Amino acid sequence: MKSRPIVPLSVPQEQRSIYIENFELATQASDNLMLFAGDQKVEHLNDDFFGVGIAPEDNDPVHMFEIASKSKIGVFATQLGLIARYGADFSKIPYIVKLNSKTKLVKTSQRDPTSSNWYEVKDILDLKKNSGLKILGIGYTVYLGSEYESEMLREAARLIKGAQENGFLSILWMYPRGKAVLDEKDPHLIAGAAGVAACLGADFVKVNAPKKEGSSSAEALKEAVVAAGRTKLICAGGGNTDPEKFLKDLYDQIHIAGASGNATGRNIHQRKLDEAIRFCNAISGITIEGKSVQEAIDMFKGL
Amino acid sequence: MKSRPIVPLSVPQEQRSIYIENFELATQASDNLMLFAGDQKVEHLNDDFFGVGIAPEDNDPVHMFEIASKSKIGVFATQLGLIARYGADFSKIPYIVKLNSKTKLVKTSQRDPTSSNWYEVKDILDLKKNSGLKILGIGYTVYLGSEYESEMLREAARLIKGAQENGFLSILWMYPRGKAVLDEKDPHLIAGAAGVAACLGADFVKVNAPKKEGSSSAEALKEAVVAAGRTKLICAGGGNTDPEKFLKDLYDQIHIAGASGNATGRNIHQRKLDEAIRFCNAISGITIEGKSVQEAIDMFKGL
Amino acid sequence: MKSRPIVPLSVPQEQRSIYIENFELATQASDNLMLFAGDQKVEHLNDDFFGVGIAPEDNDPVHMFEIASKSKIGVFATQLGLIARYGADFSKIPYIVKLNSKTKLVKTSQRDPTSSNWYEVKDILDLKKNSGLKILGIGYTVYLGSEYESEMLREAARLIKGAQENGFLSILWMYPRGKAVLDEKDPHLIAGAAGVAACLGADFVKVNAPKKEGSSSAEALKEAVVAAGRTKLICAGGGNTDPEKFLKDLYDQIHIAGASGNATGRNIHQRKLDEAIRFCNAISGITIEGKSVQEAIDMFKGL
Amino acid sequence: MKSRPIVPLSVPQEQRSIYIENFELATQASDNLMLFAGDQKVEHLNDDFFGVGIAPEDNDPVHMFEIASKSKIGVFATQLGLIARYGADFSKIPYIVKLNSKTKLVKTSQRDPTSSNWYEVKDILDLKKNSGLKILGIGYTVYLGSEYESEMLREAARLIKGAQENGFLSILWMYPRGKAVLDEKDPHLIAGAAGVAACLGADFVKVNAPKKEGSSSAEALKEAVVAAGRTKLICAGGGNTDPEKFLKDLYDQIHIAGASGNATGRNIHQRKLDEAIRFCNAISGITIEGKSVQEAIDMFKGL
Amino acid sequence: MKSRPIVPLSVPQEQRSIYIENFELATQASDNLMLFAGDQKVEHLNDDFFGVGIAPEDNDPVHMFEIASKSKIGVFATQLGLIARYGADFSKIPYIVKLNSKTKLVKTSQRDPTSSNWYEVKDILDLKKNSGLKILGIGYTVYLGSEYESEMLREAARLIKGAQENGFLSILWMYPRGKAVLDEKDPHLIAGAAGVAACLGADFVKVNAPKKEGSSSAEALKEAVVAAGRTKLICAGGGNTDPEKFLKDLYDQIHIAGASGNATGRNIHQRKLDEAIRFCNAISGITIEGKSVQEAIDMFKGL
Repeated sequence: MKSRPIVPLSVPQEQRSIYIENFELATQASDNLMLFAGDQKVEHLNDDFFGVGIAPEDNDPVHMFEIASKSKIGVFATQLGLIARYGADFSKIPYIVKLNSKTKLVKTSQRDPTSSNWYEVKDILDLKKNSGLKILGIGYTVYLGSEYESEMLREAARLIKGAQENGFLSILWMYPRGKAVLDEKDPHLIAGAAGVAACLGADFVKVNAPKKEGSSSAEALKEAVVAAGRTKLICAGGGNTDPEKFLKDLYDQIHIAGASGNATGRNIHQRKLDEAIRFCNAISGITIEGKSVQEAIDMFKGL
Repeated sequence: MKSRPIVPLSVPQEQRSIYIENFELATQASDNLMLFAGDQKVEHLNDDFFGVGIAPEDNDPVHMFEIASKSKIGVFATQLGLIARYGADFSKIPYIVKLNSKTKLVKTSQRDPTSSNWYEVKDILDLKKNSGLKILGIGYTVYLGSEYESEMLREAARLIKGAQENGFLSILWMYPRGKAVLDEKDPHLIAGAAGVAACLGADFVKVNAPKKEGSSSAEALKEAVVAAGRTKLICAGGGNTDPEKFLKDLYDQIHIAGASGNATGRNIHQRKLDEAIRFCNAISGITIEGKSVQEAIDMFKGL
Repeated sequence: MKSRPIVPLSVPQEQRSIYIENFELATQASDNLMLFAGDQKVEHLNDDFFGVGIAPEDNDPVHMFEIASKSKIGVFATQLGLIARYGADFSKIPYIVKLNSKTKLVKTSQRDPTSSNWYEVKDILDLKKNSGLKILGIGYTVYLGSEYESEMLREAARLIKGAQENGFLSILWMYPRGKAVLDEKDPHLIAGAAGVAACLGADFVKVNAPKKEGSSSAEALKEAVVAAGRTKLICAGGGNTDPEKFLKDLYDQIHIAGASGNATGRNIHQRKLDEAIRFCNAISGITIEGKSVQEAIDMFKGL
Repeated sequence: MKSRPIVPLSVPQEQRSIYIENFELATQASDNLMLFAGDQKVEHLNDDFFGVGIAPEDNDPVHMFEIASKSKIGVFATQLGLIARYGADFSKIPYIVKLNSKTKLVKTSQRDPTSSNWYEVKDILDLKKNSGLKILGIGYTVYLGSEYESEMLREAARLIKGAQENGFLSILWMYPRGKAVLDEKDPHLIAGAAGVAACLGADFVKVNAPKKEGSSSAEALKEAVVAAGRTKLICAGGGNTDPEKFLKDLYDQIHIAGASGNATGRNIHQRKLDEAIRFCNAISGITIEGKSVQEAIDMFKGL
Repeated sequence: MKSRPIVPLSVPQEQRSIYIENFELATQASDNLMLFAGDQKVEHLNDDFFGVGIAPEDNDPVHMFEIASKSKIGVFATQLGLIARYGADFSKIPYIVKLNSKTKLVKTSQRDPTSSNWYEVKDILDLKKNSGLKILGIGYTVYLGSEYESEMLREAARLIKGAQENGFLSILWMYPRGKAVLDEKDPHLIAGAAGVAACLGADFVKVNAPKKEGSSSAEALKEAVVAAGRTKLICAGGGNTDPEKFLKDLYDQIHIAGASGNATGRNIHQRKLDEAIRFCNAISGITIEGKSVQEAIDMFKGL
């Protein structure tokens, strides 16, 4: 039997039912989240959308909306500008509005990363009311260890508070990055980042899968899952890898490390539509429907 | 048959008709925009208005208003101070208020570029109401890849939101610039910039025409047009070049690359009045009226 | 006979009784404070919670809440996100909300420390009202001697004022730190820091125990206790040391130097639950109940 | 016949008559402005008020007020603190409140110049209402080409908007200055600065007289006067020079270059009272009353 | 016969009587101010309160309050935190709340000085109303010539305006300091600083006594007293010097240079209580009661 979500005490009494409704929609009444990440048009500019090995249709933003609308996903996370321009044609998608984004142009060696929120939570509420779209929550990236960490921690705390006051879910992208960060994939550091997200009150924390010599990634992730406490940890999907390996890794993250889902972007949308849909469904199969790796591979293959 | 504009869901219901009206006025009920850019008195100081090869009358700001009022343009984009001082004598011009501007004095090698908005959208609404002028929207420049990118992205998002709340159009000047930007004309980078404008929710994005060895500029522009999605892409006119080549390039940008218009400034106002008017009309001929290159050249020549 | 707390004149008349109530709850109607510090998940990332010599259960944030709820403490100080997520299950704990936190990733050699407040006092009041939790006050860290000192002093003053307007207690963590600070443990400098806290109007000031060649730490602390005036001084517990030495030092801080309590964190929560509870109780024995060192050691040993 | 002032459309309808009244008072119903500049106590510290060649009475701020009250000037521009402390004794003077000022202590080689506004326009309105003084407008300095240009352009635009909303005149001191500015007196650069003031919506722009080899200053000023468009250009008086040369230069600035007046400070107040009054009147003779150079010289000599 | 204070026109009509009352209380109905400065616990940390040659009782903040309450002073200037905690026991003291303070830890060679205001004027009004204390005004330090001068000038102007709106007096500590300042004691520079205070609208300006080879300090101070205009100049007392020399210097500052009082801190509170009281009274004797140097020395000696 599924446990009901623990509603943070910072969610006002009158917003509790909306919060629970958003949580159940996002997780499809499971405890896990399948997040389709589509915020890379800012983060990675056009590198993830056009080039060798990328389906040509991915260059048009509509591609992501078509994938999101035709496959089983928990939420589709992207920027407000795109949601506002495509949402009327894709009104069934459950959305997460990513509140901050930056390009990769300025490297850490030039200047530590920082990224301000583009909108206040009230703006997201306005869009939700004006559009009738299923906007379930907000996303925000924190670069821990950046010289601008202090501003981002403050913004994250403030935005999560704002989200909770409106029953929205809060998802933090927690990335240790900056001249002071020597190993972004260190399991102990990623566990620390997950713990910070818990202190900030996030519902979900997205981290990169850790890497440690002599340990599987899933094993290395265990420390972070526990350190996150009642904040649910999901792993970034990363670059385009072999689908079968991807699904095996995801299964292990959930069943060995105890992760609560995944956040996958380019690994999905760089495929052509039908393949992307099947891959989404395979990921959701493992994340939400309790499928085995083989069952998910079969789903991907359309068997 | 012309498609109706897609109104973003962030435009409140009660502002939709104003937004559509502004869009139809700006595009002259086409899908394309002919933007007469007159914001260079700040950007380029007096270099674009006085000197060898420039019509002497261009030094007086009234010159731009006379051109704008006597030729077929979509919108005239300039700073509020000029609009407020000349608008009473040029009340038929459709205006775009450029909200930020900086001088070129500080070079990128000294400090990455940044430019704050001079006004809030509410100020533009005040001017519109107080003056009765046809103010259709706002313009804002983002220097992508600057160390100050984060502030500009945030301002752009906030101002576009403010514009939409009042039914105004939003036009972004997207210029990759800064020590981190190695090739401002790289087609792939310009496509990225166009995609960022889409994420920010702009109606139109103005980019510089890309340059790539072994490829025509129009071919090189295709990636960006698609990456911009439903945000319409227009190309900056650039420096004073041969009018026939200019019109040919413009035709190709629209008919080969799929661009939705152009933004031309000094190439127009550095000419004396009658020639400037004829050049405007030739540009509008291609951009809005579906004229061929030769027809446009004839218009320019007054044939 | 115990003196009643001196209520600062900046506490509004109508908040005086709440302030006194909070003070009496926090001190258990003594003049001293036993503060269980649990804000290290941000400050020290996961270093204090996972690793050699740390009880494995400490990795899960719930561990701190279990300790706090099952032992005699004055207050448990931690971040709002954790309180909001665990508070419903641990509603008897008296809480202090730590308003600012930073990670240790950026070293002083790279950039002087700074840490902004995550919340306004009003947010804490909202949480108190919405949750019914026993939230008694706020905590804030000032890095004196940092290049960002000016911002932190201003925030501290403003937040203390906000706290007093709502009857909350105010506790300052005063840490001299920055490139300009040569000896963070210098007794004279720590006395200066304590005096600054008094000027800022803090109820309690947490300082690190000073170190001086040829002088016991308790002796070295005397200057600071007096310099703090009517602001009560408590000492940080520091890293995990021998429990008997810890209790002896604490006794001397209170009985020789005149300190008003202690603030202990990892020295408590790195132990397994039953040992941590016994250690808390031993500390409270000395701090609040007037026990001797030997009595406290017996309490720790469960005799 | 004198033209009526062009009221910017950003002046609200209900403030138009006040704006015109202020304009007519400042220009003494001419089209020109004689501005007595008395803001140097901050800009130049005591260098302009005490020392060799300076009348001893100039050290006392009352000296400037006595000059302003006893001679024909258009406006006296100085800081609010002085106006508030002396205004009751000098209530007939038409005042311009200089909103920003900085000292010259930090050189451009150390740090590019910046200067924030001390007051909001609302504060000036408060003073006007509370005092009944004839406060006609505001002044603000922009250092074009400084690394802080962006902040100053924004402030200038915002303050001018605020001024217009209250019918106040706006005067910009436009000074190209900063490490990026190689020649502050370059006529082309000064024309650019004048154009920026027009874009910002200033009523008057004060520039330094340009210098160019092989060209008279008045000739060199022509480009700027035209580039300023409907924003009226006035020239700074500069350091203490020969009175007859000063008056000749002024005449040429107005009659050859087309300038609309002058802004003179130390050249006036460094003289003893009666001489300063005669010099003011001679300047006003040329600027406002259409006197010839010789007539003005006679006025100065008291003939 | 004493002149009545000139009330600045920026003091609203309805606050004029309160302003005059505060002025008369502070000056004891003379034209001069004896300011007991007690803000060094932040500025100098514990250096001024504990160490060789300092009365041991000075380490406890209560010492300053006892001196202030038992001797003839004009005002006691210190931080709000101390006033709020001790004020109930020392309710007869006339207070000035120092609004900004910084520590001396960061040297000018590392970073130019800056110091933000801890409170808004409204907060001081709240304290006055809530406490019934005799709070007469505010104090603020400006470091002229610092790279952060612009922010401090703006704050000073804004806070003085706020003070005047509530009838409070305003006292500026004007200290030229920063890498650009070569000689902080230069009489001409100090005169400039005094002039800036006048432009900012301060009632009193506290400066350090100037030093110039071949000139007495009192002679060197004359320029500044005149440059300050109607803003009254008082001299900082400086470090502990011979009492007789101190009183002689003070007499000369007032009677030769024309200063309007003094601001003395450690020279008073580093003495034990009875000696400190006698020294205060001697200073007030000269400053307010028109005593001769010998009479003041006798007062100090208790004769």
